[in-house]
Amino acid sequence: MIIAVIGDSSCSPEEAKLAETVGELLAQQGVNIICGGLGGVMEAVCRGAKSKGGLTVGILPGQDSSTANPWIDIPVVTGIGEARNVAVVKSAQAVIAIGGSYGTLSEIAYALKSSIPVIGLNTWSLSRNGQEDNSIIKVHSATEAVDKAISLAKKHKNYEVASLRSQ
Amino acid sequence: MIIAVIGDSSCSPEEAKLAETVGELLAQQGVNIICGGLGGVMEAVCRGAKSKGGLTVGILPGQDSSTANPWIDIPVVTGIGEARNVAVVKSAQAVIAIGGSYGTLSEIAYALKSSIPVIGLNTWSLSRNGQEDNSIIKVHSATEAVDKAISLAKKHKNYEVASLRSQ
Amino acid sequence: MIIAVIGDSSCSPEEAKLAETVGELLAQQGVNIICGGLGGVMEAVCRGAKSKGGLTVGILPGQDSSTANPWIDIPVVTGIGEARNVAVVKSAQAVIAIGGSYGTLSEIAYALKSSIPVIGLNTWSLSRNGQEDNSIIKVHSATEAVDKAISLAKKHKNYEVASLRSQ
Amino acid sequence: MIIAVIGDSSCSPEEAKLAETVGELLAQQGVNIICGGLGGVMEAVCRGAKSKGGLTVGILPGQDSSTANPWIDIPVVTGIGEARNVAVVKSAQAVIAIGGSYGTLSEIAYALKSSIPVIGLNTWSLSRNGQEDNSIIKVHSATEAVDKAISLAKKHKNYEVASLRSQ
Repeated sequence: MIIAVIGDSSCSPEEAKLAETVGELLAQQGVNIICGGLGGVMEAVCRGAKSKGGLTVGILPGQDSSTANPWIDIPVVTGIGEARNVAVVKSAQAVIAIGGSYGTLSEIAYALKSSIPVIGLNTWSLSRNGQEDNSIIKVHSATEAVDKAISLAKKHKNYEVASLRSQ
Repeated sequence: MIIAVIGDSSCSPEEAKLAETVGELLAQQGVNIICGGLGGVMEAVCRGAKSKGGLTVGILPGQDSSTANPWIDIPVVTGIGEARNVAVVKSAQAVIAIGGSYGTLSEIAYALKSSIPVIGLNTWSLSRNGQEDNSIIKVHSATEAVDKAISLAKKHKNYEVASLRSQ
Repeated sequence: MIIAVIGDSSCSPEEAKLAETVGELLAQQGVNIICGGLGGVMEAVCRGAKSKGGLTVGILPGQDSSTANPWIDIPVVTGIGEARNVAVVKSAQAVIAIGGSYGTLSEIAYALKSSIPVIGLNTWSLSRNGQEDNSIIKVHSATEAVDKAISLAKKHKNYEVASLRSQ
Repeated sequence: MIIAVIGDSSCSPEEAKLAETVGELLAQQGVNIICGGLGGVMEAVCRGAKSKGGLTVGILPGQDSSTANPWIDIPVVTGIGEARNVAVVKSAQAVIAIGGSYGTLSEIAYALKSSIPVIGLNTWSLSRNGQEDNSIIKVHSATEAVDKAISLAKKHKNYEVASLRSQ
């Protein structure tokens, strides 16, 4: 199973703490983590994951793996800038959004377009033409986010493929 | 000046009418139009623009210019799928969003991230962590959308470059 | 009809002269030109085209239309770096390569993969596993390049679509 | 250390054997493998790597991880089509090309443009404007390819970063 964790490259200490706990919990469940590879939320989730022996993949926007945060195991250097946001979410069976600015919003949009479930912690709320869009599943703790993400990822059409692969 | 018009590839007759009028008005002001090149809102805005002698550019997601709607003058075949959404908005000095689903939301997010003004007609509303984000400038008619977009595009850092070029 | 002209952003005076003549000849035949939008061969071909009233499209790698050469009518800002090379060639019904380094080679490769004819002026030669690959059509003058490119573009599957569109 | 292995999605039995051996040897040296994730050479190298406990990353062009070959540990779903070729090579400190068609040629071009060494087994030869370009380092066996690739990857500017990371 691979779950994307998305959020801003600069974040509050509270968001960093949340992200780190999410990383720890995902790693403890044997879930691989994919993210944008940079700082802030991305770095905190990877630090958490590595502290519990998890595997972390960073989909970098730039030209060079040296921009990856130090907790990335597999830096993927795309060179395609913010268009890499598509790849971050499409590679996952579920997405956890923590806080986040417009880059995160583009990732949420891409995930929802691809029918990949999005779990939100203190992140964007959407309404369209005056009507609330409840596609982002709001949760209130790292534990709840991880439980929900894993449970939904198991229902994703590519989960069986992914789980066979990791045996 | 080049303005992006974004919206869904399937849309209501009202949205199509709005988009067509937006296209007419932009073309009458000599504004080039860029869009995602497909149907729905994208087709309607191009149809409007061509009826007034405008120039239309379609940034296509697929492998083939035959997928462009019939009112596209310059089909750009990217082959990069939905990642082409970045190019649609970054090429413009302002963006008009009409209705729209998650693809449009990703374009709005990319535009706001790049500090390109977004004018919205019956489109998404955003709030972040419980607080409204008013970055999308809400308007209520095609005329208002076009006036606002042109006025903001003139203040965009690349406007001078672009206007020199078109002389 | 739209033809891509590819080559390096720094080039010899001879290559620039060739490119400028190619631009003039294409514009005189009413052909739209697409290129990578930067300097060198790309700038020379656009300068030639504009001197004869042609239309030029530049598919830029960076974040900003200010990087376009001054003869680009339609700067498309992709933000995807060298991955934009795919879009340069896929948007065309034929490709003319003038000189060129590794970026140009990637564009030649993408064009051949997509069955878009490549006409070469002082450019790359290929052999695979010891056997010559003659897919690049070698010519020796700007006139020959333009004649060959137009004649092959007319046979391209998207030519009919494109020609209907420009009426 | 991460090394890219590139080649066609359909290949001869000899190329598949070569690729499989390359995969085994890389894995035995603890090298992670990145590739385009599909069949042919890409599948063979991953099968070899997994038989020796290696780690394999597949940068997929399409929309879905189900297109990955069964030996990919980390399927990265880019959705950007052949533009993903940039990411395959930029993520590596050295590239081994085995046979290959035009897609492989585009990857070789991108690698050389980014100053990433390319080791070639029965692959493309290049000449430019009548002059041979010897940038592709020709070798004649899987062992030679792997030795050369590892030795050159160690000199790559990102090697230190990468090796610290994997401790």
